[in-house]
Amino acid sequence: MSGFRHVALFRWVEGTTTLQQDEVAARLRELPGLIPEIRSYSLGVDAKVNQGAFDFAVVADFDDRDAYLVYRDHPAHRAVVGEVVGPLLAERAAIQYEL
Amino acid sequence: MSGFRHVALFRWVEGTTTLQQDEVAARLRELPGLIPEIRSYSLGVDAKVNQGAFDFAVVADFDDRDAYLVYRDHPAHRAVVGEVVGPLLAERAAIQYEL
Repeated sequence: MSGFRHVALFRWVEGTTTLQQDEVAARLRELPGLIPEIRSYSLGVDAKVNQGAFDFAVVADFDDRDAYLVYRDHPAHRAVVGEVVGPLLAERAAIQYEL
Repeated sequence: MSGFRHVALFRWVEGTTTLQQDEVAARLRELPGLIPEIRSYSLGVDAKVNQGAFDFAVVADFDDRDAYLVYRDHPAHRAVVGEVVGPLLAERAAIQYEL
């Protein structure tokens, strides 16, 4: 399967509530409807299997690098990052790679 | 698509060579043949699109949590982690979540 994958893991600040995390997920889930370049969009909350795991994951697939860049710089994506993800973020780990 | 996903991002220590990274990838690619619980196994090298990205990604899918735990604790996986990933690791970010 060719394509381009973006992975971002978030660790929330102390005291972040499930409600706040649900709002992040809800806002992110809107993006595939707003950004057609998104080919697949998987969101996940840590299953608490291992200590030290991050709290939340985004695994997004695109046809190619350029499609990912449209997503990265898209106003709808920037808004979610600025309005709901950023204020809760203690740590972020990310990578992008060719599938 | 139901299932269980494991995501691990690695940042290598300064001076890690492409050859060393290729050996990690080669050893990890052997695991699906040794651990049938692995349903899909995606490995990726950072495409250098964004500053500060991690160097390497593993995105592995399993039928369920228990299948992931077999992988996590499998001797073949532990060997790769101990012999080739661990010695090169500066930082690791991981999460597991229900698909």
